[in-house]
Amino acid sequence: MFITFEGIDGSGKSTQARLLAQALRDAGRAVVLTREPGGSPGAEEIRRLVLEGDPDRWSAETELLLFTAARRDHLERTIAPALAAGQIVICDRFADSTRMYQGLTRGDLRATVDRLHDMMIGRDPDLTFLIDIDPAVGLARARARNGHEERFEDFGLPMQERMRAGFLDLAREFAPRFRVIDGSRPPEAVAAEISAIARAVA
Amino acid sequence: MFITFEGIDGSGKSTQARLLAQALRDAGRAVVLTREPGGSPGAEEIRRLVLEGDPDRWSAETELLLFTAARRDHLERTIAPALAAGQIVICDRFADSTRMYQGLTRGDLRATVDRLHDMMIGRDPDLTFLIDIDPAVGLARARARNGHEERFEDFGLPMQERMRAGFLDLAREFAPRFRVIDGSRPPEAVAAEISAIARAVA
Repeated sequence: MFITFEGIDGSGKSTQARLLAQALRDAGRAVVLTREPGGSPGAEEIRRLVLEGDPDRWSAETELLLFTAARRDHLERTIAPALAAGQIVICDRFADSTRMYQGLTRGDLRATVDRLHDMMIGRDPDLTFLIDIDPAVGLARARARNGHEERFEDFGLPMQERMRAGFLDLAREFAPRFRVIDGSRPPEAVAAEISAIARAVA
Repeated sequence: MFITFEGIDGSGKSTQARLLAQALRDAGRAVVLTREPGGSPGAEEIRRLVLEGDPDRWSAETELLLFTAARRDHLERTIAPALAAGQIVICDRFADSTRMYQGLTRGDLRATVDRLHDMMIGRDPDLTFLIDIDPAVGLARARARNGHEERFEDFGLPMQERMRAGFLDLAREFAPRFRVIDGSRPPEAVAAEISAIARAVA
């Protein structure tokens, strides 16, 4: 069972990924909690290469290739072995984030994103939780955090609004595996809904 | 005019690339001499990521994506601007090396190499010099050099022999742009032949 969390920055998806991992472990399941970009030693090195330094130092196409390389490593070294061992894999962001950030924000790359995914990754999650939230709330939360990887947050509210709409479009495009979750409620309420859905299928 | 040099390790291609750059500059041409992997600041960082550390830390597919990312950056930042400015670009290794090293040595990846090249690079050289040499001579030369990037040399003589045959196959496959040069002669004699060919077309 391969479960991913997606959503705009500040949506609470990392918190929810962690809470679901805990809930499934409490229910006796073996869970690997991971994240992208990164999630394996090699992919974390690629993450640093992409996210640190001048945001414009890589073109959209080069960045897409680097993220795809990181995902391939993450899939080979972390995700696929865990799934093969019967564990549940929960991943904070996966290919849907690339469909959004590279496919939507930086030129008309979506077709290239899809072809590259089919060619080099070829694996989609079984279940994807989209944590949907008001972009202004998400942006305020994201800005309240301190971090040196502020690539996407820096794009501001209009971009967050496009991202929210884009994620909702993806949820319709890949409807069978997507569940859209109202992220405006208290984290515990969100977590309870997610846990119920996951435990019904996992 | 985009000129590349290919050949097995120890063939003398780096020396010949440098000598041709000098000869063309002496003839009054503006020349950019570059190399792969690397050739732009971003691509050099990716080069270090791939070539340093355990040779097996990346799968063939991840390595292919990383080299393609580096090539895309190199093309965008170094090669294309120089060509657009009317300069001659001489590059020590380019996509043919990927066709060989990723396409031949590590699984049957050649079709993937080609599709990725068409999708993300889409540029082949105008002229490619293949410096052809006895693999035993090349290996001895390569081993005599001191370097910490010994990825390919480490594969030994049987691999060098396969590489030589593979490069000669590529020269037939892309016959219009390839010139096979006998690299067993003194460097000055090799350089004179290459310079005459390049000056006739550049």
